[in-house]
Amino acid sequence: MQTLKLELGERSYSIHIAPGLLQQPQLILPQLRGKQVLIVTNTTVAPLYLQTLTSSLQQARPDLDIRHCILPDGEAYKDITHLQLIWDALLEAGFNRHATLVALGGGVIGDMTGFAAACYQRGIAFIQVPTTLLSQVDSSVGGKTGVNHPLGKNMIGAFWQPRAVIIDTNTLKTLPQREVAAGMAEVIKYGLLADANFLDWLEQHMAALMAGDPVLLAEAIARSCQCKADIVAEDERESGKRALLNLGHTFGHAIETEMGYGVWLHGEAVGCGMWLAADLSRRLGWLTGKELQRIEQLLLAASLPVRPPAKMSVDAFLRHMAVDKKNLDGQLRLILLQKPGEAVLMDFKETSLLRQCLSDAL
Amino acid sequence: MQTLKLELGERSYSIHIAPGLLQQPQLILPQLRGKQVLIVTNTTVAPLYLQTLTSSLQQARPDLDIRHCILPDGEAYKDITHLQLIWDALLEAGFNRHATLVALGGGVIGDMTGFAAACYQRGIAFIQVPTTLLSQVDSSVGGKTGVNHPLGKNMIGAFWQPRAVIIDTNTLKTLPQREVAAGMAEVIKYGLLADANFLDWLEQHMAALMAGDPVLLAEAIARSCQCKADIVAEDERESGKRALLNLGHTFGHAIETEMGYGVWLHGEAVGCGMWLAADLSRRLGWLTGKELQRIEQLLLAASLPVRPPAKMSVDAFLRHMAVDKKNLDGQLRLILLQKPGEAVLMDFKETSLLRQCLSDAL
Repeated sequence: MQTLKLELGERSYSIHIAPGLLQQPQLILPQLRGKQVLIVTNTTVAPLYLQTLTSSLQQARPDLDIRHCILPDGEAYKDITHLQLIWDALLEAGFNRHATLVALGGGVIGDMTGFAAACYQRGIAFIQVPTTLLSQVDSSVGGKTGVNHPLGKNMIGAFWQPRAVIIDTNTLKTLPQREVAAGMAEVIKYGLLADANFLDWLEQHMAALMAGDPVLLAEAIARSCQCKADIVAEDERESGKRALLNLGHTFGHAIETEMGYGVWLHGEAVGCGMWLAADLSRRLGWLTGKELQRIEQLLLAASLPVRPPAKMSVDAFLRHMAVDKKNLDGQLRLILLQKPGEAVLMDFKETSLLRQCLSDAL
Repeated sequence: MQTLKLELGERSYSIHIAPGLLQQPQLILPQLRGKQVLIVTNTTVAPLYLQTLTSSLQQARPDLDIRHCILPDGEAYKDITHLQLIWDALLEAGFNRHATLVALGGGVIGDMTGFAAACYQRGIAFIQVPTTLLSQVDSSVGGKTGVNHPLGKNMIGAFWQPRAVIIDTNTLKTLPQREVAAGMAEVIKYGLLADANFLDWLEQHMAALMAGDPVLLAEAIARSCQCKADIVAEDERESGKRALLNLGHTFGHAIETEMGYGVWLHGEAVGCGMWLAADLSRRLGWLTGKELQRIEQLLLAASLPVRPPAKMSVDAFLRHMAVDKKNLDGQLRLILLQKPGEAVLMDFKETSLLRQCLSDAL
């Protein structure tokens, strides 16, 4: 088992990575505050892993009062209406502020469960048990929680750190290939923004990773989590460096919002968004055409889209990008690549260059 | 002007108390982060003070983009549905995370605006401008924010501190007498739980306070805010002493929830709840019958109810009290009086004594 530590003072926590962790309750039990546990999951993950997790906890601690809340699966349900189902379940169970939430599922379940925990009785404990590649390498680590609003993605939320992240790599065996690709977008992101060596490693191993090699996947997850943990430890509330983790996300959120949440997977939109950020960086003279091509090849090897959907327009992009959380006082801010392995956040004023980039891509 | 300071490290802020502060924008302006301001108020307060506040800010800083969001007035609307109207207004205005919310109104507006600020783009700045006695002496100070759930009051919320509290005591001139009484319940609470001298002072001046004496009211507000600020500074997230501020609230919340939010005002329910807590303390032998009578006289002098509504039943009380936030693992916790001016939080196991107390009161 690999165990990484996210250092955040009294909010520090461990990230455990290994096959079979769903059956190792000793990682979760020390993090419970009271005896009340609500496992939040979705209709896809529940039949696969809910029983396993519930049994292993219950057998280890027969006194626990373990309930569950099963949400519909998909980004389309990451909204306030479905968030309320978690609070309803907590209150119907009569759970108090020493209850613990467990998020068993992908990024949507993790974000919603974390936000539900942040707000229930003004804040209770929660544990991340991510079951998709994307949530294992990105969303389960760092305490960003929230839901979407019809006018913008993740607009309503909180910074609320889990008490532990438990990554059972066996769960990847049941993950559809499209979801593996979506998760790989965030893996590639770490290489692009901060680690040229990791980028080389990914180029070398992408075929084996996409084929599901368990040892390489565990390595990719651990390196991704370490990169994220380092950045979050330095800038928990995104006043600076953490914004770099949004490479590709400003473009990606525009695609997700315009297409309707869930039509493109988040990772797919981010994959395309990273390509757009790379192409814009090339137009600024920061990347060579060859470097852009190398990035495109890596995204394609991970079965990710490198062009936006035909339904998008330049104006739709610009409209959605204008409400991005990184923008301040009307100034568009973008994360671009100074070179492969080094990202930078900049106030972006070259609207005509941006329009040209989007227009050519479309 | 009296200025108190709530010491919370980097989250410290000032509480300003004086007549005419709505026309003193220099207290608010240094607390704004960007140029975007959304004033949240209600249909009762808007015609009285929205124009005054907006004009004074706009004249001092013509570059500000000031919008408003007007909610219906009353505890019945302190729910997630109406909370969303604030987020809708922020997103429709295209406001970013350097926007500032201003809560102009009573406790409901302050709680909802603070919670909206806590969750918008994972947290933006807000300023409290309380216009009722209750919100001036209690809810605007200390960072407790949230909304009600059909199964419990304030069940969904966050700890989120304002950047300043601006108390214009002139707003009390337009406050209905029933609301003055409701606010006085929280003033009396501070005397009962922590300050026997203040309790004496209140007994001496209650008639003049209820008649609206501005100097005495400002004094009562300042002493109440100081008491609250001291306790919050010591225990921001209510892991200990802060729970004492809920004297009367466990009973009071049961009344509010059972009657339907808004039928009894929060302060009325707390007034009755404090009487019940005092009577239960007497039954435990902690207060004398004479001390209980003295407390009852003070509550009556403030036009507060000292008996629960006939519609309540013992079972309704116990059912609602069971989901109170102070309870842990099924154990009822109550705040009782060891003597006038000294409250204590205790695990309460004497159910038959509690039943008798409620039954006699009903």
